[in-house]
Amino acid sequence: GNKITELYTGATPSEEMNGTGNLMDFLDEPFPDVGTYEDFHTIDWLREKSRDTDRHRKISIKSKESYWELIKSLLDAWSGWVVMLLIGMLTGTLAGVIDLAVDWMTDLKEGVCLSALYYSREQCCWTSNETTFDDRDKCPQWQKWAELMTGHSEGPGAYVLNYFLYVLWALLFSFLAVSLVRVFAPYACGSGIPEIKTILSGFIIRGYLGKWTLLIKTVTLVLAVSSGLSLGKEGPLVHVACCCGNLFCSLFSKYSKNEGKRREVLSAAAAAGVSVAFGAPIGGVLFSLEEVSYYFPLKTLWRSFFAALVAAFTLRAINPFGNSRLVLFYVEYHTPWYMAELVPFILLGVFGGLWGTLFIRGNIAWCRRRKTTLLGKYPVLEVIVITGITAVLAFPNPYTRRSTSELISELFNDCGALESSQLCDYVNNPNMSRPVDDIPDRPAGPGVYSALWQLALALIFKIVITIFTFGMKIPSGLFIPSMAVGAIAGRIVGIAVEQMAYHHHDWIIFKNWCRPGADCVTPGLYAMVGAAACLGGVTRMTVSLVVIMFELTGGLEYIVPLMAAAVTSKWVADAFGKEGIYESHIQLNGYPYLDVRDEFTHRTLATDVMRPRRSEPPLAVLTQDSTTVEDVETLIKDTDYNGFPVVVSRESERLIGFVQRRELTVAIKTARQKQDGVVSSSVVYFTEDNPQVAEACDPQPLKLRRILNLSPFTVTDHTPMETVVDIFRKLGLRQCLVTRSGRLLGIITKKDVLRHMAQMMNQDPESIMFN
Amino acid sequence: GNKITELYTGATPSEEMNGTGNLMDFLDEPFPDVGTYEDFHTIDWLREKSRDTDRHRKISIKSKESYWELIKSLLDAWSGWVVMLLIGMLTGTLAGVIDLAVDWMTDLKEGVCLSALYYSREQCCWTSNETTFDDRDKCPQWQKWAELMTGHSEGPGAYVLNYFLYVLWALLFSFLAVSLVRVFAPYACGSGIPEIKTILSGFIIRGYLGKWTLLIKTVTLVLAVSSGLSLGKEGPLVHVACCCGNLFCSLFSKYSKNEGKRREVLSAAAAAGVSVAFGAPIGGVLFSLEEVSYYFPLKTLWRSFFAALVAAFTLRAINPFGNSRLVLFYVEYHTPWYMAELVPFILLGVFGGLWGTLFIRGNIAWCRRRKTTLLGKYPVLEVIVITGITAVLAFPNPYTRRSTSELISELFNDCGALESSQLCDYVNNPNMSRPVDDIPDRPAGPGVYSALWQLALALIFKIVITIFTFGMKIPSGLFIPSMAVGAIAGRIVGIAVEQMAYHHHDWIIFKNWCRPGADCVTPGLYAMVGAAACLGGVTRMTVSLVVIMFELTGGLEYIVPLMAAAVTSKWVADAFGKEGIYESHIQLNGYPYLDVRDEFTHRTLATDVMRPRRSEPPLAVLTQDSTTVEDVETLIKDTDYNGFPVVVSRESERLIGFVQRRELTVAIKTARQKQDGVVSSSVVYFTEDNPQVAEACDPQPLKLRRILNLSPFTVTDHTPMETVVDIFRKLGLRQCLVTRSGRLLGIITKKDVLRHMAQMMNQDPESIMFN
Repeated sequence: GNKITELYTGATPSEEMNGTGNLMDFLDEPFPDVGTYEDFHTIDWLREKSRDTDRHRKISIKSKESYWELIKSLLDAWSGWVVMLLIGMLTGTLAGVIDLAVDWMTDLKEGVCLSALYYSREQCCWTSNETTFDDRDKCPQWQKWAELMTGHSEGPGAYVLNYFLYVLWALLFSFLAVSLVRVFAPYACGSGIPEIKTILSGFIIRGYLGKWTLLIKTVTLVLAVSSGLSLGKEGPLVHVACCCGNLFCSLFSKYSKNEGKRREVLSAAAAAGVSVAFGAPIGGVLFSLEEVSYYFPLKTLWRSFFAALVAAFTLRAINPFGNSRLVLFYVEYHTPWYMAELVPFILLGVFGGLWGTLFIRGNIAWCRRRKTTLLGKYPVLEVIVITGITAVLAFPNPYTRRSTSELISELFNDCGALESSQLCDYVNNPNMSRPVDDIPDRPAGPGVYSALWQLALALIFKIVITIFTFGMKIPSGLFIPSMAVGAIAGRIVGIAVEQMAYHHHDWIIFKNWCRPGADCVTPGLYAMVGAAACLGGVTRMTVSLVVIMFELTGGLEYIVPLMAAAVTSKWVADAFGKEGIYESHIQLNGYPYLDVRDEFTHRTLATDVMRPRRSEPPLAVLTQDSTTVEDVETLIKDTDYNGFPVVVSRESERLIGFVQRRELTVAIKTARQKQDGVVSSSVVYFTEDNPQVAEACDPQPLKLRRILNLSPFTVTDHTPMETVVDIFRKLGLRQCLVTRSGRLLGIITKKDVLRHMAQMMNQDPESIMFN
Repeated sequence: GNKITELYTGATPSEEMNGTGNLMDFLDEPFPDVGTYEDFHTIDWLREKSRDTDRHRKISIKSKESYWELIKSLLDAWSGWVVMLLIGMLTGTLAGVIDLAVDWMTDLKEGVCLSALYYSREQCCWTSNETTFDDRDKCPQWQKWAELMTGHSEGPGAYVLNYFLYVLWALLFSFLAVSLVRVFAPYACGSGIPEIKTILSGFIIRGYLGKWTLLIKTVTLVLAVSSGLSLGKEGPLVHVACCCGNLFCSLFSKYSKNEGKRREVLSAAAAAGVSVAFGAPIGGVLFSLEEVSYYFPLKTLWRSFFAALVAAFTLRAINPFGNSRLVLFYVEYHTPWYMAELVPFILLGVFGGLWGTLFIRGNIAWCRRRKTTLLGKYPVLEVIVITGITAVLAFPNPYTRRSTSELISELFNDCGALESSQLCDYVNNPNMSRPVDDIPDRPAGPGVYSALWQLALALIFKIVITIFTFGMKIPSGLFIPSMAVGAIAGRIVGIAVEQMAYHHHDWIIFKNWCRPGADCVTPGLYAMVGAAACLGGVTRMTVSLVVIMFELTGGLEYIVPLMAAAVTSKWVADAFGKEGIYESHIQLNGYPYLDVRDEFTHRTLATDVMRPRRSEPPLAVLTQDSTTVEDVETLIKDTDYNGFPVVVSRESERLIGFVQRRELTVAIKTARQKQDGVVSSSVVYFTEDNPQVAEACDPQPLKLRRILNLSPFTVTDHTPMETVVDIFRKLGLRQCLVTRSGRLLGIITKKDVLRHMAQMMNQDPESIMFN
């Protein structure tokens, strides 16, 4: 309504009550378009906030009128919580469905459950009556494709057939995924986090969080993960959660009509997304706070926490992992860690940092190539080829054949006495009889050594293939592949340290803490530390990373190793380049994102950044009482600025306000249609007083003070750019006018700021300071 | 140095290089006082940030000159982490020492350890060889005073003697505490959190975080807690941690000379304080973020986390509780909770909210009375009287006689089979032989019933006495008393529900989840939920509260009950008044604190708030080229403004800059001393060009452009106050100039904003909007 416009223009109540003539009456009808933004435009946070305050004010006045209005106002106050509840429930449900579907389809590549086609291998074997604990690895109900089709489960023929079908299924899934994305929702590709960061910072990308994107991303995510590509579901789950958030925003005008409030909901939705991705609600909230969100008031913190918890509990109610556990990788270690182990942990941190740098550089180079060369023209072919290569190389190696999350889970695991995995093939001393829980230090058996070789090959494979996979036109997260790389490296280091400690008890470094026969080294912990280090190197998360890992282990015990690795990896990676993978992709795509973390330390002033530059034509301005309707229309036609400053006169150049292009267009169009006497030569007035119409024959003037923003944001030309950047960041401005001693000199838009920052980044700071 | 001043005044590099005449040379010597603030003044965040950026810039240029400078710059970059490490270590150590001392002195009120006088009762009994598990309650080494002095441990005489000595010790401790505070460090009283919030929001209170305060607060905290008063050590520990932070700031000029950077360190220190208070590092960081801090960039989040962890691990290394546990109240429950239990949990939330309201209202009324009546004149007497009453009433009841944290610990505890407490006196069925861990539901024995009565009395006692205790002139935190109130209420409710469930298995509400013989209700969990609710009602913490509680239990299992209670309690308490206890005390003391959470929804404009008002004399301004030195000196003498706007001329009133009073004074003083020809009639120039000295006989002009801030913050008179408040909050301004079409109209300071907000709060919003 036009109340919003009034508030925005800052009209005082007295003006409103006295009225400024009947000329304005037609404007009491609401402008159809006021308050919305065009696609790929930046929102004005201050304005959105003002609009919301005004809405609140109206509701609180109305609520005193009747009980019905009071109830409506209470409903409005509660709508935030309702939205959070709905987001949490839908996100949790979708995450559960995705988990179940991925489980089933991943196993479908290898075989099928005869008792029920929709069972995954695990469900199939556990529901089968014949399965006892001892032969849980044999499971007659579950048949591999070769066994089902030829009757033979062993031999080279069966192996080749299984291999062939594995690749075929993978190609089928990925082809379906990329086709669905191409045809129905191009925005459903990638991890989505760079775009969500940009949207949350106040950018409009229509349809990015739409219903189609939600549907297609959910379906294709299942297909992409099941195809065995080196990608994870965590990033896309954040995107899915934000789509849910956007969906429920449309239920309440409070959120659907206010881009600022909508972003509060989306921040909370991102928290819910991470919460279900890892089963870590607190970590999810901190991830949203640290990594994704831009404007995060305390109220949002609390609501995010609520949404994250609801999502986590919904997921647990669905119980896709079948173990009542909330977390993705539940681990429990039996031995503490020792100070001396910090050395390998820090080495893992260094590895994580190097991996982060390698991955970001390689991936960005490949994505740039995709953008600029013919490669980008054949996204379907690219996906097919990469899937083919992945599947062909992955099948022979048992550690890459299975799903990546299963791999990580196994790597994280401590070798209990009941563990049957190859990685736990230690030589047991038959003379020792100890309780099940207390396992002594043991020498590695042949299984462990062959596992080490396979893991080393898997490591190289994962490192290379992930660089090419992330950024293809299918949903792809990089949390899981990064963690896998780190977990493999960590487990290898862990086993090495463990065996060193076993064989060299007498070395000084082991002497103090590792008695013979004691179980001193937990290789699973090394895998976990490595995973944290690699994830930290790629994303540069810190607190949220450690908290997510803390929630996985559920104890403060292992926070110091995790922190040491995370800090080292961040420092090493930062030494090669400050930007994490998401910031790099934002930059690659040229989104107008003003990073809160970039410190602007150059010594430029507002005058160096503002437009018009010296060589450019003067700023397009309106005067308060001497521009005609025709002049305005010409100006609107000739320029594409989002708004125009209004000055007292061209001579004095004293600023009185700012008018939005959109509102100006609508106002003039409406006036021409509805108001008698408004013609091309009518003078447009922005003054407070009624214009003095000199002669009767003069055309009717058009008063437009109502659409004038009387409180535009100004800085002086001498303001250091670091202050200007700070103001843009903290207040979320779209533009800012530059004045000197009250005279208007120019304008700085958010894009000007970003362009300037990019320029400065590429120059040597000293050259700017002293030239 | 004056580089800082240059940056602040926004002089362009070209001006700097060309120089504006030798007149200015003397100003190259650093101003002694520039950049510091006076006591009880507000800091300018933007300016502090600018100064830090400038410092960085200088260091990064220098670092390229020599290896030594490079090393220095690296050291500077690392100093933040070093400070965090030191803060963590000192805070952890102090917390450990305080814990040990409190343990010993609390027990000293009842008796003494004969084997070693410095042992607390627990240490005494556990080190004694004669103590076996069965008679751990008897402990010959530990003697009560009566036993030691008269030889009789039983009988009315011994009871009276013990009673008398208990009260005497309490009086002695509290007298010592209040005397030390009075004589050495008056700032050491209270919880300190309101003041720390104010300081972190950008206010200067000299000495509040000084060394004396640190020392005295640590010592008196031990005395106050040991005296048995109804207060806790958590709030004061935050104060102690902040004092440590301030102490280590002085080691590095980066922090000691920049009030903005110092506050980043203090935010992290507050996190470390809570971390050691509860053994909850993540909760501590969130507490600092949610409750205490004002400016909390991501870098601070990460460093706070580091400091909190170091502090927690230092505390664990000291191991004051003797159980290797990090957390204050470690609990482990064996049964899950059921949906139906949400009803009593929510009722506890309502109780918590009501308690919060009662406590805040009562305590503020009492503190106001203390401020305004004769009561405030006798702080020592007040402490003595309250201690006397507390001790006399507390001794007869075993639940109030012991220390409050022990009480909470017992109330939180699940009744295991080995529990000997009165609260666990259930009637065991001798026919049932079950494993130790699996305890069936049992009827309450006589011990439980008598415990219930004592708890009810303790509840009333705690509720009343806490209201009078908080705010006395000794260190006093309210976390522990609040939690005690909630824990008592919760345990009573828990036992009631448990017994109902036992005796009425067939009731519909119990039928579905409570089979006969099963242990369905955990009264300890109710105590915990009650504690969270009461703490939430008083402080209005939300996320940090739940996370602290989550860290205590170490499982997500019980987050839903805790959250339900915390949310209910916050809503109930908010219904009676939006402010928590800290905000209420800030308001009571009139600190200039601009709360981030208060939404300013009134429809006033900058013009309604700015000074001068219509009736007042015009704004004190300087002109750029027509004020004489004498005029300036008169202005400085006659007014007490912190700074003066500089305009082109009194006629045009176009603003060119703002000059700080402090810098103006120093500049004129220095010029008068060192610059020849500067006399009272010299004209002060703020212009860019060299002044044209018309005649030779004219006095030398004084050029002061260097101290002129060329980028003062301005808003137009039509700016809605909600925007102005937002700008003040987010940018941390001290003042803001108000213009209309480039003309200077007035000024708004932070105090004007606060005054206006307070005014608006007391009026009906509608009356402002429509009159």
